[in-house]
Amino acid sequence: MLWSGWGDPALAKELPEPIVKLLHDLLGVRAPSSAAVSLEWVRLPPVSLTPPTLEALHAIVGAEQVLTGDEDRVRHTRGKSTPDLLRMRAGDGSDAPDAVVRPASHDEVVAMLALCAGGSAEGAGAGQRLAVVPFGGGTSVVGGLTAARDGFDGVVALDLGRMDRLVSVDTESMIAEFEPGIRAPEAERLLAAHGLTLGHFPQSFEYATLGGFAAARSSGQASAGYGRFDDMVVGLTVATPIGTLDTGRAPKSAAGPDLRQLVLGSEGAFGVITSLRLRVRAVPEEKVYEGWRFASFAEGSAALRALAQEGPMPTVLRLSDETETMIGLAKPDAIGGGDSGCLVIAGYEGASVEERRRAAGAVLARLGGEPLGTAPGDAWAHGRFSAPYLRDSLLAAGATVETLETAGFWANLPRLYDAVRLALHGSLGSPLVMCHISHVYETGASLYFTVVTAQDADPLAQWEAAKTAVNEAIGTAGGTISHHHGVGRDHREAYAAEVGPVGVEILRAIKQRVDPEGVLNPGVLIP
Amino acid sequence: MLWSGWGDPALAKELPEPIVKLLHDLLGVRAPSSAAVSLEWVRLPPVSLTPPTLEALHAIVGAEQVLTGDEDRVRHTRGKSTPDLLRMRAGDGSDAPDAVVRPASHDEVVAMLALCAGGSAEGAGAGQRLAVVPFGGGTSVVGGLTAARDGFDGVVALDLGRMDRLVSVDTESMIAEFEPGIRAPEAERLLAAHGLTLGHFPQSFEYATLGGFAAARSSGQASAGYGRFDDMVVGLTVATPIGTLDTGRAPKSAAGPDLRQLVLGSEGAFGVITSLRLRVRAVPEEKVYEGWRFASFAEGSAALRALAQEGPMPTVLRLSDETETMIGLAKPDAIGGGDSGCLVIAGYEGASVEERRRAAGAVLARLGGEPLGTAPGDAWAHGRFSAPYLRDSLLAAGATVETLETAGFWANLPRLYDAVRLALHGSLGSPLVMCHISHVYETGASLYFTVVTAQDADPLAQWEAAKTAVNEAIGTAGGTISHHHGVGRDHREAYAAEVGPVGVEILRAIKQRVDPEGVLNPGVLIP
Repeated sequence: MLWSGWGDPALAKELPEPIVKLLHDLLGVRAPSSAAVSLEWVRLPPVSLTPPTLEALHAIVGAEQVLTGDEDRVRHTRGKSTPDLLRMRAGDGSDAPDAVVRPASHDEVVAMLALCAGGSAEGAGAGQRLAVVPFGGGTSVVGGLTAARDGFDGVVALDLGRMDRLVSVDTESMIAEFEPGIRAPEAERLLAAHGLTLGHFPQSFEYATLGGFAAARSSGQASAGYGRFDDMVVGLTVATPIGTLDTGRAPKSAAGPDLRQLVLGSEGAFGVITSLRLRVRAVPEEKVYEGWRFASFAEGSAALRALAQEGPMPTVLRLSDETETMIGLAKPDAIGGGDSGCLVIAGYEGASVEERRRAAGAVLARLGGEPLGTAPGDAWAHGRFSAPYLRDSLLAAGATVETLETAGFWANLPRLYDAVRLALHGSLGSPLVMCHISHVYETGASLYFTVVTAQDADPLAQWEAAKTAVNEAIGTAGGTISHHHGVGRDHREAYAAEVGPVGVEILRAIKQRVDPEGVLNPGVLIP
Repeated sequence: MLWSGWGDPALAKELPEPIVKLLHDLLGVRAPSSAAVSLEWVRLPPVSLTPPTLEALHAIVGAEQVLTGDEDRVRHTRGKSTPDLLRMRAGDGSDAPDAVVRPASHDEVVAMLALCAGGSAEGAGAGQRLAVVPFGGGTSVVGGLTAARDGFDGVVALDLGRMDRLVSVDTESMIAEFEPGIRAPEAERLLAAHGLTLGHFPQSFEYATLGGFAAARSSGQASAGYGRFDDMVVGLTVATPIGTLDTGRAPKSAAGPDLRQLVLGSEGAFGVITSLRLRVRAVPEEKVYEGWRFASFAEGSAALRALAQEGPMPTVLRLSDETETMIGLAKPDAIGGGDSGCLVIAGYEGASVEERRRAAGAVLARLGGEPLGTAPGDAWAHGRFSAPYLRDSLLAAGATVETLETAGFWANLPRLYDAVRLALHGSLGSPLVMCHISHVYETGASLYFTVVTAQDADPLAQWEAAKTAVNEAIGTAGGTISHHHGVGRDHREAYAAEVGPVGVEILRAIKQRVDPEGVLNPGVLIP
């Protein structure tokens, strides 16, 4: 993965002509005054770990698994939000970990946590108290990897990349057990050998890990059919500084609160997930994606709601608003048959695809949809993981591009949609704001916004102000601060407002009990 | 509700002949030496509340809503487990609350909690520290209403029966908001006026409240189609001693752990649920229930698994083992067309019932099922809430009858089934043990056991020993200690073993933070 951007540098995208034209004509984008620095120019703080600490780390994972070189540190600095990239491109490595440590087992993670909390597995502490940042694919876009340094002697990135096994497959219960550091494509490849799939395909799919999906409550593009990642988790093992938590003896239980749902979304603040038991499904026999055109976002939204509430539910279901549809159509490889309206992508995977497609199509047609055939669906499927590449090109051209998202109940969705757009326009002047619904439920849906704006002299501060305005708007309009990106550091204050004082006290009580030294991802999630 | 048994005394059941014969011939049941006492003979501890405490309670809810009469106290003593009934029939009212308090609003509940924690809404405490037992329908079968008295100046039953409104209906989001004390039939009646239903029909349906369903993570007989109660909850308001928790801004969120899932199953130990926002559905156009016969529990189980994993999923799906099927067939109104094997009930509600019935039927037939038509289905639907009445008759006749349940993953289900049966036979000699699967998931299912045994001289101790043996067996076999009854006091130790030391610490940390005086349902849930 590119250290200062997304994905494979060889796959970097040229900006399509219509976008370049839009950038100049509509948004006033100009090339930035300074180009991105190269990796060796990133300014890093000195490694603060003492020789005894390094020796203690070596004793746990082996000397070759404790990395303190510049490139390793840079590659484990922050995540992949636009502010993260802006900082890295400006050479700001101030959030770099002092070391990258790569454990190979649950026991090594347990020993690491004891050491970082100021002790060691053998009870002889190395004397330094270290913040621990669990690191999977490094794809957080909410500051989930940017631990607070204050009050710590150093920061360690706990890279779980060596814990990447498919441990077992139970085809009777349809459960696969994985270690947390396995990347999603590798997990799918190993499952495919058994004729199985998770069906979890978020935009971060190519780089993110299964442990990260669980820690951040990820939701994939096929959530309508396969469910969110939290729907797939039937069991978790978690290493905490006070011991190991093992959850999940049954699909569902009435034995108290569901502790799995406490670990899901805990973003490394309560512990390190070291094993996941996940519901799997048979690899679909067939996949068909198609497009539908609706006259307006409101009409398309009503059609999605009907499918979610009355069925049949497609496997993939998304709706772009007028602006996102227009920008999509403006691409050189233009999709769809109309020049206005809103594009719906409906995908069907599995068995009896044609039957479900026909039944869902009848609902879409009844509610005003115009069928566009499979071309728009295939175009969407082809480009489904490529948006972050485009962002890098736009950044280099002087445009800030960022995404943000929320979710709410259907009756509140128009208010939420308007509130976010108003906040962005109020803060950024005349940005380009696109939106889509990509996850639908019986009672509500997600709203996913993509914002493009010309950078001013201080693009970081410019975006921070916009983000603050949006967070407030989402809170006031009654939405949740994140449907699938998570909380991290960027949403921490908004999250506190969302869960309220009692919710905050509950989170703090858990945190203080399982992590009394507060070394786990400090500053992330917990207000 | 009968104070010493289940339901409407006018509906008490005569024992069917075949059961009476079985009781004598197979189990050696004899009539008990002493009959049940009448209500006025129940021994109650004196009311321990001081005049200032009573005055303070009066000030909050009004004097007429603070009940200290014997009958009110008896009717709020314990729940409806067989040990609960045995104790009451023996005249043991030692767990009676000192007072029954009936708040009418969230604010009154908040004030009550402050008062019981030793303070008052105005800051002038009445000086007594009181245990608070939230009381809905009083149908707990796991000791969920039997708070510990030790260390408290008294026990107050917080009867939520006056908080019984349907607050609002949002037909766009398909969400209804209820107060917690509304009983399920009344909730369904009010929803039906809008053409809506919850679709939640546990055996306790006729008496239980929606707040109780949430607090105990209830699961209904139509869970295959409508989901468990926890699937229906999109938002909760909870009064705690440190303030109000308000959760649920969207169907799903990535904003941290799902705090709704912490309240669900918390059994009044973390707070009192004062509002529920629930997903509703359209009243089904049609309902069809039918029977299928399988040669064995294993074959029937494989067929249920196929439906759960590959679809189509019926609305109701249950399978009785050989013994339960035989006992069912032995009834005077015998059901089914065979004299052996295992009975499956498959129910279909909603739209396109015939289509789904045909498709599911094809799966059942392919896997060895023999169709029995709708007669067994109708018989099941007719008697679906009547089993507890039969238990009362059996108790009076000298047979202990009790139910217990667990859940596990499919591959582990045979082991779990064997372990529970072995434990019951080991402890009780030759009891009658029946089992059914009533809730299926892609990765596993529930197991629900009904046990009938002749009472020995000390039926309470006899059952307690059996229950202890079963709890250990479930733990060793890797099941959860409850699929839908909950933890209460009866499962508290087994629950501690299930969640492990770190899980226990998490629960205690939350409890201590939100209920620092420990007044909320002490002794229940939290190990």
